[in-house]
Amino acid sequence: MKLSNRILEMDFSPIRKLVPLANDAEKRGLKVYRLNIGQPDIVTPDSFFEGITNYNEKIVKYCDSEGVDPLIKSFIKSYKDFNIEFERDEILITQGGSEAILFALMAVCDPGDNVLIPEPFYSNYNSFAKVAGAKVVPFLTKIENGFHLPPKEEIIEKINDRTRCILISNPVNPTGTVYTAEELNMLADIAREYNLFIISDEVYRQFVFDDIQYTSCMHIKDLQDRIILIDSISKHYSACGARIGLVASKNKDLMKQILKLCQSRLCVSTIEQYAAANLINTLESYIKNVRCEYKIRRDVMFDYLNKIPGVVCNKPQGAFYILAKLPVDDTDTFAEWLLKDFSYDNKTVMFAPGAGFYATDGLGKNEIRLSYCTDIEDIKNALVILQKALEVYPNSSTIK
Amino acid sequence: MKLSNRILEMDFSPIRKLVPLANDAEKRGLKVYRLNIGQPDIVTPDSFFEGITNYNEKIVKYCDSEGVDPLIKSFIKSYKDFNIEFERDEILITQGGSEAILFALMAVCDPGDNVLIPEPFYSNYNSFAKVAGAKVVPFLTKIENGFHLPPKEEIIEKINDRTRCILISNPVNPTGTVYTAEELNMLADIAREYNLFIISDEVYRQFVFDDIQYTSCMHIKDLQDRIILIDSISKHYSACGARIGLVASKNKDLMKQILKLCQSRLCVSTIEQYAAANLINTLESYIKNVRCEYKIRRDVMFDYLNKIPGVVCNKPQGAFYILAKLPVDDTDTFAEWLLKDFSYDNKTVMFAPGAGFYATDGLGKNEIRLSYCTDIEDIKNALVILQKALEVYPNSSTIK
Repeated sequence: MKLSNRILEMDFSPIRKLVPLANDAEKRGLKVYRLNIGQPDIVTPDSFFEGITNYNEKIVKYCDSEGVDPLIKSFIKSYKDFNIEFERDEILITQGGSEAILFALMAVCDPGDNVLIPEPFYSNYNSFAKVAGAKVVPFLTKIENGFHLPPKEEIIEKINDRTRCILISNPVNPTGTVYTAEELNMLADIAREYNLFIISDEVYRQFVFDDIQYTSCMHIKDLQDRIILIDSISKHYSACGARIGLVASKNKDLMKQILKLCQSRLCVSTIEQYAAANLINTLESYIKNVRCEYKIRRDVMFDYLNKIPGVVCNKPQGAFYILAKLPVDDTDTFAEWLLKDFSYDNKTVMFAPGAGFYATDGLGKNEIRLSYCTDIEDIKNALVILQKALEVYPNSSTIK
Repeated sequence: MKLSNRILEMDFSPIRKLVPLANDAEKRGLKVYRLNIGQPDIVTPDSFFEGITNYNEKIVKYCDSEGVDPLIKSFIKSYKDFNIEFERDEILITQGGSEAILFALMAVCDPGDNVLIPEPFYSNYNSFAKVAGAKVVPFLTKIENGFHLPPKEEIIEKINDRTRCILISNPVNPTGTVYTAEELNMLADIAREYNLFIISDEVYRQFVFDDIQYTSCMHIKDLQDRIILIDSISKHYSACGARIGLVASKNKDLMKQILKLCQSRLCVSTIEQYAAANLINTLESYIKNVRCEYKIRRDVMFDYLNKIPGVVCNKPQGAFYILAKLPVDDTDTFAEWLLKDFSYDNKTVMFAPGAGFYATDGLGKNEIRLSYCTDIEDIKNALVILQKALEVYPNSSTIK
């Protein structure tokens, strides 16, 4: 039976593909430190669970396709604190940030159109682009440059008449880079000159460290009809399994069209939306404390990684990932070896191999993404194991 | 700013598009009977809410992309009672039946491929096909024939080398028709001869009346690698807002590929899945009682409609909709007039105009879909209003 080329050409998640091997390792009695996935160990605020149990309707009904009123109003209020003004019809609630990105791409790209993305990038952008029939055209950001954007001309040379949008995450998953206002203004200039949308995935925007000034794409002047904002409660409130996100834009024509996509899937989980509405704006200190906790973990991970011979990495400015270069030829093979053939003190470690975050073949093969949203002792233990593993790994090499 | 042709060519939901007019009418003080939407007024079982409150994790984590184990096992057990055997890796949990249909189309169709659908059909099939870049090719079912399938040759003549699948709902939304085993076997023959998948949307399969024998596509012998089953808890358990559905197939290669789509959106709401797992198989009598209630309502609606001069309809055998022909030129205009210019005893009525359920231009213009999943007194009152409206509607006509 012939399946679609679209689905055959999609990739399995590089972040999740090693899970069966990790499960096997655990069945063999090993402890596996799972630094592969962005699943925080921080508890979800009580107000979310209160919102769940407060739901006292007798029927779990469809709600409006655009989302429930209290949740949209909560988001509007929360953005005001960041000097971002949204009106009621400029926000649509989605099934996590994932659906928001997919809807944004669907709305601006036809099959064969191009999406410009700085690489490395969150690997599911590839999947969403494939689903939308769009082609990912990457431009390179380099570890030597802190994964900041390249000069304008390097981006422009990738643009052609099928280019429709630039898709960024900021802070960047998987590098932890936070773009400066100057970098965003450069992208804005490009968007104006070449008539592009900018899809800005800001699901980590509240996790920026070291008093770095965070600039949202929504803060760029005279560009607001070109900006599509992606947000989610998943990371900020440690509620990944709630699947509550949003797509937002001051471009009301665009939002009116995206409503068609929302109507096609009827609505987002009703109870989860009310719970999320009960969550946002109720906890001034929560995100501040979480940010503080992630900063401590980042410091621990960064300091430790830096001490491992042959490992190269930057100190992340935001989000909760480090993209590190290892002294091995192929981190895919190394990751499998760690789960199948290695243990130290009856423990091993799992991370996301770097190649999955690049669209260009051959790039990222000696890089890995490590998540530090897990317990600090686990981070320390995992890095000891990583060091011990690198000492004995047969295919170790010097950094190229 | 140029948007994608895909989204510009999509339609707003014909079922939901009149909602703003209904809201306006209510603001003017009118009572609006909303027979447009398949939102049951039956209470959701307590076991669902118990499942919600029993969730006692401290973190709302991502779950596996394929769905949580207890829910998949619940579905497997529930299918056994219908003589349908599924294994663990043949079911993937989705965000309602909506996502399941979209994933099925994505997996078998590339842009430009054709999907055969008997019309009239559930209007969102159009949207899912547009999102997948596929073209809907309808073949006509007629009210005179109880909306049963046409002869095999009428279906075959629509097939070309781009045809990939036949998409049906059974029982049919919007007509309430239940296909016979003979009809399904005819589709099976066509699928074999022309190498097609059959996507079978059976979200109303438990609502079949009058002791009619229900045949699932899963019951067809020697066809199981061609069948993609769509199911959902939305209608069966009156839990539309939970957004829990599934896509299932004995074709393991297909299911393995669809997992890529599941991974791209990470997971379905974790808490809702546990609640659904707590729901299924716990209530033998619930669905039986609901089925009985819908049968009573169907009889009331059918009997009443049949007495209104000029109205033509069949007695539905399943689901909870009637597709009726009215003595008016254009039910879109009539529906607007009802909400803007008419009231009887300070009340009016909303339904879904028929044209939205047809892909062929000009068809269904004098038809409407009425839902009878609402309170029986409301159904009676709504039909009185419909009759009064038809008596005075300026554009009434005899049936064509």
